[in-house]
Amino acid sequence: MIDAENLAKLYRDNLLSDVIPFWQRNAVDWTNGGYFTCLDRKGRVYDTDKFVWLQARQIWMFSMLYNKLEKRQEWLDVALAGAKFLEKHGRDAEGNWYFALNREGKPLVQPYNIFSDCFAAMAFGQLFQATGLSNHGNLGRDTFNNILKRRQNPKGKYAKGVPGTRNLKDFALPMILCNLVLELEHLLDAPLVTDTIQYGINEVMTTFYRPDERVILEAVNLDGSFSDSFEGRLVNPGHGLEAMWFMMDLAERSGDNELMKKAADITLQLMEYGWDRTHGGIFYFLDVEQKPLQQLEWDQKLWWVHIEALISLAKGYLHTGDERFSQWFSKLHDYTWAHFPDMEFGEWYGYLNRHGEVLLPSKGGKWKGCFHIPRGLYQLWKTMEAIAEKQRQLIIQDK
Amino acid sequence: MIDAENLAKLYRDNLLSDVIPFWQRNAVDWTNGGYFTCLDRKGRVYDTDKFVWLQARQIWMFSMLYNKLEKRQEWLDVALAGAKFLEKHGRDAEGNWYFALNREGKPLVQPYNIFSDCFAAMAFGQLFQATGLSNHGNLGRDTFNNILKRRQNPKGKYAKGVPGTRNLKDFALPMILCNLVLELEHLLDAPLVTDTIQYGINEVMTTFYRPDERVILEAVNLDGSFSDSFEGRLVNPGHGLEAMWFMMDLAERSGDNELMKKAADITLQLMEYGWDRTHGGIFYFLDVEQKPLQQLEWDQKLWWVHIEALISLAKGYLHTGDERFSQWFSKLHDYTWAHFPDMEFGEWYGYLNRHGEVLLPSKGGKWKGCFHIPRGLYQLWKTMEAIAEKQRQLIIQDK
Repeated sequence: MIDAENLAKLYRDNLLSDVIPFWQRNAVDWTNGGYFTCLDRKGRVYDTDKFVWLQARQIWMFSMLYNKLEKRQEWLDVALAGAKFLEKHGRDAEGNWYFALNREGKPLVQPYNIFSDCFAAMAFGQLFQATGLSNHGNLGRDTFNNILKRRQNPKGKYAKGVPGTRNLKDFALPMILCNLVLELEHLLDAPLVTDTIQYGINEVMTTFYRPDERVILEAVNLDGSFSDSFEGRLVNPGHGLEAMWFMMDLAERSGDNELMKKAADITLQLMEYGWDRTHGGIFYFLDVEQKPLQQLEWDQKLWWVHIEALISLAKGYLHTGDERFSQWFSKLHDYTWAHFPDMEFGEWYGYLNRHGEVLLPSKGGKWKGCFHIPRGLYQLWKTMEAIAEKQRQLIIQDK
Repeated sequence: MIDAENLAKLYRDNLLSDVIPFWQRNAVDWTNGGYFTCLDRKGRVYDTDKFVWLQARQIWMFSMLYNKLEKRQEWLDVALAGAKFLEKHGRDAEGNWYFALNREGKPLVQPYNIFSDCFAAMAFGQLFQATGLSNHGNLGRDTFNNILKRRQNPKGKYAKGVPGTRNLKDFALPMILCNLVLELEHLLDAPLVTDTIQYGINEVMTTFYRPDERVILEAVNLDGSFSDSFEGRLVNPGHGLEAMWFMMDLAERSGDNELMKKAADITLQLMEYGWDRTHGGIFYFLDVEQKPLQQLEWDQKLWWVHIEALISLAKGYLHTGDERFSQWFSKLHDYTWAHFPDMEFGEWYGYLNRHGEVLLPSKGGKWKGCFHIPRGLYQLWKTMEAIAEKQRQLIIQDK
């Protein structure tokens, strides 16, 4: 039994009194536009490079709070500071999004990574809902269409694989498209939304999920078969767990009970699979055949893995009422709150070693910014409110 | 005072009775040619991809033993099994070396990495000394010339950096050229050898070594100035330590006492800088401004770092007689032998966590093959013999 009311308060307070103020106070570059994400333990800027994933994600985050929570002008101002910077500097001549820019906005790293485009589309789709400005809407829609065009060869000329020898497809893109298409629904034709959702669900739940091994693979052969290679054997439990709450949201939206049940089941399977029974926490990477991995960081405990897993467990509990979710949730919640949040200087650590000790004291860098923690805190707050409401209904029924 | 005679025996025995037999027994693919380097703790093949760095390095290793130690046909046969495979499958139409091939030799990963070419040149240069076959010599020389042609833009069309914003040059290439040019000396014109050595020494000892911070940087601006960026702040102590024995070998060859003294001094500085005072061992990566790193593996202890450092300390002791080298050598020798060699199944572990626990039990993979350990054991054996000889001379003089 989850104490949903108090947990809702905990997650809301951490979001609104700690994490969002941390980024609002420390990240915005009011001189050049955009955000600093390389923030040390105390929030001081230790590097000024601007990574497009994280620029876009912070625009999205502050726009989302403005749209869903409260029309605070200060939140919209933060979002616009990033948006102006990206509009001006973010794309190459073909409209592809660079991977990294310097402080002033000059491009540092070419658009080799289609997830820059995914997060940019997500950012401008959400921002458009706040501003109603056509340039924001157009940028979201055009970027989404460009992603669909690049989908078969997302790395383009920067792909290092030799075509023909081992052609794999990755889990990440269909998984993100499932979420992205909902973010942009108001900008897209209805059939495109339906088709993309159907494609995404099918890829995630049928192609990449392997019922025999009870895992989601990161890459498979183009025909969906298993590739016995480093890439093909790789499992990222947190990635699968994140996908499961995207699936539950889609199942709730369409009233698809079968999809809901399957996503909830896989959530439990991935927790069983990914949990470190010696030191606690969820491993970053595992090999499905228990072979040695290439990833030297395989045994580390990462912020986003843990908060994404909490969301799926909470939603699994909300939608099924199965106590296995509340048991896993409590165990993971306890581990997470004992290790990740920095009670002294705010926000959360990103990287722990296997033992749970802080590996890097920074609050942000090339990959960690204002995204998984605040998005997760918001999701957990709202899910706990829904659970609390259900619990109240049950008590009333009992009387 | 180093017990050089017993250490010579220890390193020789580990080389000839353990490490070389391990690779000879487990690595050779007698069916397709080439070598398996993904070997688990017991030497069993867990993946069949063939990485060109490691193919070339094993050719070099067995050719070198054949040339320098003993004309054992079995060693030459191992070298030739790899050489035939690489000759047939290793290059694209322009003569650039692929990064990875599959078991049968079909290319998997494009020639984005010029170090494949460096190790191929080294392999065929050394093999030519064993076989005298012109195809081996030509391949070594042609590859070397191609490296020089590609030197200014080693990643070619696979470079992800946008030209003009932050143009850096890397330490790795000039460092390797210093060693490579000696490997190929018998195939090159004398002025090219002299010029390349001069260029390499100057880059390593003047451009990349920073006397104020007492470190060697991994990357600097094209004009040699410091780049305050993730790449520019990066220090890889083991990389610098490895370079120092290349420098000492060059200093010995030319009788350059000043270069010898500087290389020896920097060796001690890098040991002071890179040593983990809490858990022992040498860190993999550090940030020269003590800022958070991008490398999540920064605090791990790697096989090659430790054995390369032992070589530089041993050579430093041989050439200077300074007891600080023997003190550091003993400390590092004790750490290394307590943690890396696998006394049960042979060879050495590659990756330990910061605490010194085995992170991956495999003996080889994408980056670890038949190279640093056997080359290091050979270098340490021969250096210990030279130290023992000097010690005997001193005793005779004393009498």
